[in-house]
Amino acid sequence: MDTSLFVNPEVRTNFGKTPTEAMEGFLSLAVQIPTLDFYMPSSIFQELLNFIDESKISGDLLIVLRQKSPSRHELSCPAFLLYELIDDIRERVNKGLRVAEKAIRKTSKEKENEKEIIQNLRRNYRDALRDGIIDSKEDVDLILLAKELDALLVTADNGVIKWAEKLGIRWLLPKKFKDYLVSSIKRLKPQPQSQKVGKA
Amino acid sequence: MDTSLFVNPEVRTNFGKTPTEAMEGFLSLAVQIPTLDFYMPSSIFQELLNFIDESKISGDLLIVLRQKSPSRHELSCPAFLLYELIDDIRERVNKGLRVAEKAIRKTSKEKENEKEIIQNLRRNYRDALRDGIIDSKEDVDLILLAKELDALLVTADNGVIKWAEKLGIRWLLPKKFKDYLVSSIKRLKPQPQSQKVGKA
Repeated sequence: MDTSLFVNPEVRTNFGKTPTEAMEGFLSLAVQIPTLDFYMPSSIFQELLNFIDESKISGDLLIVLRQKSPSRHELSCPAFLLYELIDDIRERVNKGLRVAEKAIRKTSKEKENEKEIIQNLRRNYRDALRDGIIDSKEDVDLILLAKELDALLVTADNGVIKWAEKLGIRWLLPKKFKDYLVSSIKRLKPQPQSQKVGKA
Repeated sequence: MDTSLFVNPEVRTNFGKTPTEAMEGFLSLAVQIPTLDFYMPSSIFQELLNFIDESKISGDLLIVLRQKSPSRHELSCPAFLLYELIDDIRERVNKGLRVAEKAIRKTSKEKENEKEIIQNLRRNYRDALRDGIIDSKEDVDLILLAKELDALLVTADNGVIKWAEKLGIRWLLPKKFKDYLVSSIKRLKPQPQSQKVGKA
């Protein structure tokens, strides 16, 4: 599970209005499904703490939402991923250069607004270089943990989903995560054995 | 073996004045060492063809210098390399942005020389983003082929050497490659058995 589920407004509103409410909404469903284990990379959980009210994190949440980093030094990845990553980078680096050139031409024409142009440059440059790429350790953590646990990946980050595809990792449409949980609860009801596990 | 051995002026002069001469110099030594196999990734060999006179490529060279791509879809690499690569990229992407900002400030001050400033930007940007990083498929080919064959890597590219270190690949100081070959020839002389193999 990724932070984006509770932070991204398009996705989180299924669960609650604010990130904190969304997390509580998730928890209220998750505790009813003892047959599912929920994992979040520790680095992603750290990220999440920037968005939610820490005092609202209950013991229940810490039990239900397990934090675990992937085994970074034991896992391996197919070598062709290195080629794809490097291809990705080259393309984006060239995009970044074009963004910079455009900004210079604009500066040269307008002969002022230096500050504003640099602010725009920063935004455009970052957009050009980050869109659709795995660009952070947190992204890699998500992918590798899903791989390690053979888990279902739930994230709203398209760059991460693209890479999950390359590695044969199952992923869920993030907007459907709530439906997935609700259906899981329904499926538990007629199975007294599973309920027993829940009560144990 | 990397193109840089025959192209990089600091390294190639051991073997010959021009890239073509350097390759012939290498060949004259290599044919005397039947106990060593020399490999070059096919992509690197393609690169080399841009620098040498193709009519000077002898059948002997093609026999002695074997071309082989790494088994890209069978090999795997440790997952921690993904983290290091992504760290590398982030740092360089930030460097690229600073280069672009500097260029804009200059444009804004000088209010002319747009063409010249953009030319400088291109050079500085590329330098900032490529220095010491593995940034091409050819680089990855070199590293993975050395890994696959458990071979001794010979290159003048510091980015590649840095990554070889991370993967426990043996590498040779490129300037000492000729000495290595000459010593290999000397060591063969008192071993009649190895000579037999050479004559066979």
